[in-house]
Amino acid sequence: MSTQMTVEEMQSFIEKAFKKCTIRVVELGDMYSLIEQETDDYNLRPGGTVSGPTLMTLADTGLYTALLAQIGPVALAVTTNLNINFLRKPEPGLIRAETKLLKLGKRLAVGEVTITSNNDPDPVAHVTGTYSIPPR
Amino acid sequence: MSTQMTVEEMQSFIEKAFKKCTIRVVELGDMYSLIEQETDDYNLRPGGTVSGPTLMTLADTGLYTALLAQIGPVALAVTTNLNINFLRKPEPGLIRAETKLLKLGKRLAVGEVTITSNNDPDPVAHVTGTYSIPPR
Amino acid sequence: MSTQMTVEEMQSFIEKAFKKCTIRVVELGDMYSLIEQETDDYNLRPGGTVSGPTLMTLADTGLYTALLAQIGPVALAVTTNLNINFLRKPEPGLIRAETKLLKLGKRLAVGEVTITSNNDPDPVAHVTGTYSIPPR
Amino acid sequence: MSTQMTVEEMQSFIEKAFKKCTIRVVELGDMYSLIEQETDDYNLRPGGTVSGPTLMTLADTGLYTALLAQIGPVALAVTTNLNINFLRKPEPGLIRAETKLLKLGKRLAVGEVTITSNNDPDPVAHVTGTYSIPPR
Repeated sequence: MSTQMTVEEMQSFIEKAFKKCTIRVVELGDMYSLIEQETDDYNLRPGGTVSGPTLMTLADTGLYTALLAQIGPVALAVTTNLNINFLRKPEPGLIRAETKLLKLGKRLAVGEVTITSNNDPDPVAHVTGTYSIPPR
Repeated sequence: MSTQMTVEEMQSFIEKAFKKCTIRVVELGDMYSLIEQETDDYNLRPGGTVSGPTLMTLADTGLYTALLAQIGPVALAVTTNLNINFLRKPEPGLIRAETKLLKLGKRLAVGEVTITSNNDPDPVAHVTGTYSIPPR
Repeated sequence: MSTQMTVEEMQSFIEKAFKKCTIRVVELGDMYSLIEQETDDYNLRPGGTVSGPTLMTLADTGLYTALLAQIGPVALAVTTNLNINFLRKPEPGLIRAETKLLKLGKRLAVGEVTITSNNDPDPVAHVTGTYSIPPR
Repeated sequence: MSTQMTVEEMQSFIEKAFKKCTIRVVELGDMYSLIEQETDDYNLRPGGTVSGPTLMTLADTGLYTALLAQIGPVALAVTTNLNINFLRKPEPGLIRAETKLLKLGKRLAVGEVTITSNNDPDPVAHVTGTYSIPPR
């Protein structure tokens, strides 16, 4: 299955969809996306780590881009469930989310996201999420 | 069990902890917190609804304030798991998170959060989350 | 909204649906069910507590009965997501699951389940789950 | 990191821990376990598929064996959270759970489990779970 959108089309799409989006789309593939973001002061929390909401936002966008890469720019696909496990203290810097879709059905898509920081192979968070796909 | 922090102390604490925090602490009680936020353009997503990350941020802060109200300003308590179910399309405006702690152990605290928008009694999202409490 | 099935009809339905079912339906209401079970040796795990799978089975059945009470005996409704937090060591004996549906949509229903043991008010587990409803 | 228990030791351990256990330990490795089970009539649900609780039990045991393979036979390690996404209708027959630990900390371990049926590569369920490790 080839992707319905290029990296450039996806980048343009998410920048229109979300104001002040600082996420970069790095790669799109079969049931797959890789996105990244440089953290700034607004992404930090006490202790100098990256905030949970920053990681959740990145993961949700990872799922969204992996899904839209398969089904095209259906803006109204919505998250129905997201579950995140925080695994390690994330260092500020470059955070990356690698998403694999586990299921792409007619009504629901499910994926998992692994988040790393500064290219450390040990993940800082792991996410699973479900998107509801509007009737087409 | 009485709370360890007043509403004013908690408000001051989260504003120092999180930059650009627009969340207001409304009420703190026994294993309980109520917080709220006015959504702005940056909290919206395609379709004119409040973004998932905005709701996740509010829920995480709800859990944090309910926990700190019990144990005092231990900034280094960290989320280990958060699970969110999105239930209804949230209208922009006033969003509120009501948190009840289900367990407050020595090492882990678990709570549930109900999020409503514009005082509609039907919740827009439901969250459960776990915080790890540092040794004291 | 009144229920589509009586307690007796539901009891008969789940006993046909699941072999060796020892769960009793206690009460059905608007977006609500209460069910219970006496634990036996097969429900225990090391340390003399009730096993996680026993609690998960009870919770899943709680969601199923609360849903079918609203929509009627649609056996093919299936769980798509279940999230459980184990809160306290459950004592063997009578375990009860109280389910509240948070959302009943056309395609998805979401509910939360509180599990107690031996009428202790502090819950031993808290569950949220999603059922996919087949087209009718 | 080598494992603290052999496949035979683990098999013997779980058969003592859980009555009527029909799960077989297939392989243990670094932060890894593979276990399997033949479904029987008691594992089925309406529609002829494998019941959710059967899959949850297998997943929980997968996490338990992967953890104990690393830390040794600490029976009192307990699940604190388990999240399951049901992806496809599982055919009765041989079901397998492959577990990878994502984190092994002093107090908490987190892992993910992929469940397949009859060697079909598309998973029927995906699970993440957290175990609390007793002080040693």
